[in-house]
Amino acid sequence: MLRQNDPREISPHGEGLVKGVAVDPVIFGFHEGRLKVLIIEHTNTGLYALPGGYIQEKEDLDEAAKRILTMRTGLSAVYLEQFHVFGKYDRNDAGVVRQILIGQGFSPAEEHWSLQRFISVGYYALVDYTRIELTPDPTTGRCEWFEFDQIPPLILDHRLIIDKALATLRINLDQLLIGFNLLPELFTMGDLHTLYETILDKKLLSTNFQRKMLSLGILERIEKKKTGKAHKAPYLYRFKSTT
Amino acid sequence: MLRQNDPREISPHGEGLVKGVAVDPVIFGFHEGRLKVLIIEHTNTGLYALPGGYIQEKEDLDEAAKRILTMRTGLSAVYLEQFHVFGKYDRNDAGVVRQILIGQGFSPAEEHWSLQRFISVGYYALVDYTRIELTPDPTTGRCEWFEFDQIPPLILDHRLIIDKALATLRINLDQLLIGFNLLPELFTMGDLHTLYETILDKKLLSTNFQRKMLSLGILERIEKKKTGKAHKAPYLYRFKSTT
Repeated sequence: MLRQNDPREISPHGEGLVKGVAVDPVIFGFHEGRLKVLIIEHTNTGLYALPGGYIQEKEDLDEAAKRILTMRTGLSAVYLEQFHVFGKYDRNDAGVVRQILIGQGFSPAEEHWSLQRFISVGYYALVDYTRIELTPDPTTGRCEWFEFDQIPPLILDHRLIIDKALATLRINLDQLLIGFNLLPELFTMGDLHTLYETILDKKLLSTNFQRKMLSLGILERIEKKKTGKAHKAPYLYRFKSTT
Repeated sequence: MLRQNDPREISPHGEGLVKGVAVDPVIFGFHEGRLKVLIIEHTNTGLYALPGGYIQEKEDLDEAAKRILTMRTGLSAVYLEQFHVFGKYDRNDAGVVRQILIGQGFSPAEEHWSLQRFISVGYYALVDYTRIELTPDPTTGRCEWFEFDQIPPLILDHRLIIDKALATLRINLDQLLIGFNLLPELFTMGDLHTLYETILDKKLLSTNFQRKMLSLGILERIEKKKTGKAHKAPYLYRFKSTT
């Protein structure tokens, strides 16, 4: 199944890989009031998972997270943020990992390193899913956006990882918003309101929301467009430059 | 140097330990307007470091962090929070780790696993340093609170780990305050003000501070003590119960 000279991350013996540490990116997709999450299916297994993988020996952890995400999904230039390490000693499941390796055409030995304990470093990102073309690599059978209420059962503790990522995203929303580029350069207070309501999954009172957003000091108000109906048009805002 | 049957974490061959992953706790100590950090000296080396160590094979990551902290310093029942994983591929320094092992009476082989790459999971906690008795284990020569401007040069990237922990503490101050038990059960707004000013290392205007704290909805105001000078006594507060 594997091409020659491909920097494939699962090799039969794990040459060149750091053993015992994985990376699992949780990619949230937002567009017009809907929040989704990116799930892969491991080739020939029917097993659903986060688009994760292993670190190369001479690769920084954060670089590995970016490379693995690109390999699995085609996404690049995404701002990935570490949010938690998952380190329960019994979180791996040798039977499941064996199935994944077999699905890729390998016959893992009993004591194969990937069947042993490993910790996983969780990263997350938030992107506009309509701007993204998904191009999974050959070890990744499928790669799809799922609505939250339609996420299939996932391997290992991957559902827990997603839930923890979502909780972190909600807590950090104000601080992290600027980095995510989920809104056009100019947007209305209503656009911002929809983004918050979607991620928090609750209604927010417009007047309170507007007051809070303005008090953060991160928005710059732009002149309304000069049109015949200017008095009815909403104000446009942009994020203040942080440079 | 080592006692028999001691669950010592550095053994010559690392039996029973997870290789490639360490834990480094950053313990901030606060008391009456001073913020300090807990630093150890590795036995017989003159090398200063965070009170870190390795994970046992059948031990959850979070449990390992607690055990290692207790072993190195005597601290227990401290609320440790993960804050970041340090994963630069070249962050280890074989020469330094060799010195530490030699200081403990070992003669590590060239290819000893602890001389190779490892990632470190950073945890932090905030405690009242006057309530703590430090009792380092034999692999830990000394264990002391240092003022921030008197921290000696530290091994590897440990100074970077401290700086990142402090930045995280400052960002999360409001959310994490309740968990830390740094104040007596009843305290004045002035006590709280001092705590914030110390950690943030800047002056905060009293009236703004009080308004912000009250708006968080986490404080409960208690009746003043009934004394002859009650009208001059400050109000006492306590944190609302979260259960």
